[in-house]
Amino acid sequence: RDPLVIAGRTFGSRLIMGTGGAPSMQVLEEALVASGTELTTVAMRRVDPAARGSVLDVLRRRNIAVLPNTAGCFTAGEAVLTAKLAREALGTDWVKLEVIADEHTLLPDPVELLEAAERLVNEGFTVLPYTNDDPVLARRLEQVGCAAVMPLGSPIGSGLGIRNPHNIELIVEQANVPVILDAGVGTASDAALAMELGCDAVLLATAVTRAQSPVAMAVAMRHAVQAGRLARLAGRIPKRRYAQASSPWEGLSAP
Amino acid sequence: RDPLVIAGRTFGSRLIMGTGGAPSMQVLEEALVASGTELTTVAMRRVDPAARGSVLDVLRRRNIAVLPNTAGCFTAGEAVLTAKLAREALGTDWVKLEVIADEHTLLPDPVELLEAAERLVNEGFTVLPYTNDDPVLARRLEQVGCAAVMPLGSPIGSGLGIRNPHNIELIVEQANVPVILDAGVGTASDAALAMELGCDAVLLATAVTRAQSPVAMAVAMRHAVQAGRLARLAGRIPKRRYAQASSPWEGLSAP
Amino acid sequence: RDPLVIAGRTFGSRLIMGTGGAPSMQVLEEALVASGTELTTVAMRRVDPAARGSVLDVLRRRNIAVLPNTAGCFTAGEAVLTAKLAREALGTDWVKLEVIADEHTLLPDPVELLEAAERLVNEGFTVLPYTNDDPVLARRLEQVGCAAVMPLGSPIGSGLGIRNPHNIELIVEQANVPVILDAGVGTASDAALAMELGCDAVLLATAVTRAQSPVAMAVAMRHAVQAGRLARLAGRIPKRRYAQASSPWEGLSAP
Amino acid sequence: RDPLVIAGRTFGSRLIMGTGGAPSMQVLEEALVASGTELTTVAMRRVDPAARGSVLDVLRRRNIAVLPNTAGCFTAGEAVLTAKLAREALGTDWVKLEVIADEHTLLPDPVELLEAAERLVNEGFTVLPYTNDDPVLARRLEQVGCAAVMPLGSPIGSGLGIRNPHNIELIVEQANVPVILDAGVGTASDAALAMELGCDAVLLATAVTRAQSPVAMAVAMRHAVQAGRLARLAGRIPKRRYAQASSPWEGLSAP
Repeated sequence: RDPLVIAGRTFGSRLIMGTGGAPSMQVLEEALVASGTELTTVAMRRVDPAARGSVLDVLRRRNIAVLPNTAGCFTAGEAVLTAKLAREALGTDWVKLEVIADEHTLLPDPVELLEAAERLVNEGFTVLPYTNDDPVLARRLEQVGCAAVMPLGSPIGSGLGIRNPHNIELIVEQANVPVILDAGVGTASDAALAMELGCDAVLLATAVTRAQSPVAMAVAMRHAVQAGRLARLAGRIPKRRYAQASSPWEGLSAP
Repeated sequence: RDPLVIAGRTFGSRLIMGTGGAPSMQVLEEALVASGTELTTVAMRRVDPAARGSVLDVLRRRNIAVLPNTAGCFTAGEAVLTAKLAREALGTDWVKLEVIADEHTLLPDPVELLEAAERLVNEGFTVLPYTNDDPVLARRLEQVGCAAVMPLGSPIGSGLGIRNPHNIELIVEQANVPVILDAGVGTASDAALAMELGCDAVLLATAVTRAQSPVAMAVAMRHAVQAGRLARLAGRIPKRRYAQASSPWEGLSAP
Repeated sequence: RDPLVIAGRTFGSRLIMGTGGAPSMQVLEEALVASGTELTTVAMRRVDPAARGSVLDVLRRRNIAVLPNTAGCFTAGEAVLTAKLAREALGTDWVKLEVIADEHTLLPDPVELLEAAERLVNEGFTVLPYTNDDPVLARRLEQVGCAAVMPLGSPIGSGLGIRNPHNIELIVEQANVPVILDAGVGTASDAALAMELGCDAVLLATAVTRAQSPVAMAVAMRHAVQAGRLARLAGRIPKRRYAQASSPWEGLSAP
Repeated sequence: RDPLVIAGRTFGSRLIMGTGGAPSMQVLEEALVASGTELTTVAMRRVDPAARGSVLDVLRRRNIAVLPNTAGCFTAGEAVLTAKLAREALGTDWVKLEVIADEHTLLPDPVELLEAAERLVNEGFTVLPYTNDDPVLARRLEQVGCAAVMPLGSPIGSGLGIRNPHNIELIVEQANVPVILDAGVGTASDAALAMELGCDAVLLATAVTRAQSPVAMAVAMRHAVQAGRLARLAGRIPKRRYAQASSPWEGLSAP
């Protein structure tokens, strides 16, 4: 009743998973199922689509849509090429676009990213770009035709949560496409907060795959995304500087 | 499988609800049911146990245990008296002990609180004291025999969340009784965070009853408490200053 | 022109120093002078007032008033006794009252502290109590006659700064005696923030004495306290969610 | 003894002022003098260099170097043109480069900014770009030859301080040119924090010009920048989870 819609496709879950970092394929499979995800990213540079027993098999078996990503690409050219290979291999024109500036921060390169996004949109791709939390770049990405914007909360794998909630709110306020928090989530409250700030979905990987108990954390994240989404819709109480007592009860008691 | 145990009683839900602030008895009932709570506080000074249609009827009908509280008491003497009246009227020796210092902050008075706790324990009560977030006072309350300690996140009704997570962690580390975050929760991520910090349960009222959609927020809080609890148990990834890429995938693909 | 007044005595500096942790007496002396402090605490249990070359000699030589403290006391009785010994040895009825709950957290024990404060006030002492950041306890301490209240920012020596600025603000709003932030300052911005929140002074020790360059940090703290005080008095701009451009300049240019 | 060096020029003060927002030219002049600044930005689009009584007269009279800025420019082309006009009018090839994306957020446009920076460097300008807090863009700006990078703490005029200290630290760690925090400072502790994070200087305007007492706030900022700088150099104590008592004093007392 409250589906996530991206580029006309509908998803029942607002938790998008990544697959990196899992201790084994079996744990990954269990965690993906436990998370309830319906869309999962796979690094095209790291997977052989023809290989048996790959993560792609898991996704097919579990009926989870695959979202190829361009992890490991440092230029627009590399990313465009990788996206095209993914389209051919996997039969999807959806792509999570990553164009990374360096191995140290894994932060997106804004210039290369924007160029790659524009080229891929022009080639008919449905582009979901991983971006920094700059509201201006997010708007630019939307303007060139991206189907969503995916700002980071903090650097990939850092588990630092959302370092600048203010920026995420600015992005949400102006966006006409889904905003998906991508990168930085370390624990459940981070994911809940992302949704409370108005994000439409959360994308995470290592917070689950590298937790001590990946399956338990996958369930936690499923609950957290639901909690945050519902809290956003429910309309939270305002923050007050001072205490406020509950109403007197007399009015509620029958005479 | 992961029950909350307080003074030997077992609860399936780690969300304890309060009842103040609801727009109507019907909404309150729906919200309580939606929250999944099994234990709910009621202000003894505000309810007539004999009245029909009272919140007590709702709790009986819904099989939710009642936890009378001493809201509105400013001295140890008042609180002890109120607790005794509650025991007589409701047939329970459990009491959520509140001894408030003033109407403006609704903060607990540490001296009166400790005295009241000691007297009530000596009279055979099972005492769950609402306290500030001072680790020393929490330990003192445990030492005089309280069955739990219930530190605030921030002032009652403020919705400011957990102002001092460090203190909550210190309380959790030293406690041998359940730690229940009480007061300050404004939205779902606050409740999740409380559990991630190691609290055993969360007590809240106005975050649900005064939300624009109390029932939706009740469901959000149910998910949030589960999310936070699971995340705590799952063992989150460490926080890192720098990014960390996912492992290469080759190792996971079958040959 | 903006002196600090405590119990009728006037101080030109709002930085109160402690003496623990210095690598040598010489460095301590240089740091005290560099800080500009006019009031410095000394642990009575750690100093022999009759010894030559002690910190007391330094304070006398530098014309810095001594504020004996009761560090190391765990009960009201010990603290009262220590304060009396200090009065006799040092000829001052001022005392920084510390009553610590345990060696691990060094947090004040609220019950023993309040009792000691009341007894010392009744014995004619000018009492400056080190307390937690509970606004209720701060008010109680003022009510029993303390000449100031000295809430912590965070545990002694932790360098965690002010964990709960909201509580410090609540204390400041209600206080009719000087509020002195005591404990937790790690760096200059912490001290500035304390003053901006409305504290009348800052007390710190290890942030200076254990810095890599204690004298440089002492100067930093002197500037920081002045900066924070001036900023408080100057009336800062409000926080805004959105940007605001500077006014057009035309109006200011002469025709 | 600790001068700020930008592109070979040396400044005794690490506080760079802006001029927008002052209630009168006289207050502005007093505030600039009180701040101790040696470098001050002026919006070229808002000032007539030939007018008497303009802010330029003030700067000349007070021997403060002028740094023309391109405020109000939305494209690289506009910014380049404005910089050239400034060079001709003011006889300086220094320029604070601003290329804003929209009037609402006043955030820099990363693409236009980078293009303008490159063009201006190629034309022989000394370029100090106002940028967002993206470490990748900051590195790119340095790579095209900017003489400094000037990341924002938060949107212009917002007074929200430094929303993402982590990003500022990342920028500082990698930079080989001065890092100047620009925009967002609301009060003294914000400026001190910027310096503690490793920034080489702070640029601010409305925090002073729109304070209730601009001159007092100018003095506060002067102290704050010195405090933060010294604290950075002094080597702060580490943050600890738990308390740490001062050393025993016995060792320091003479026998």
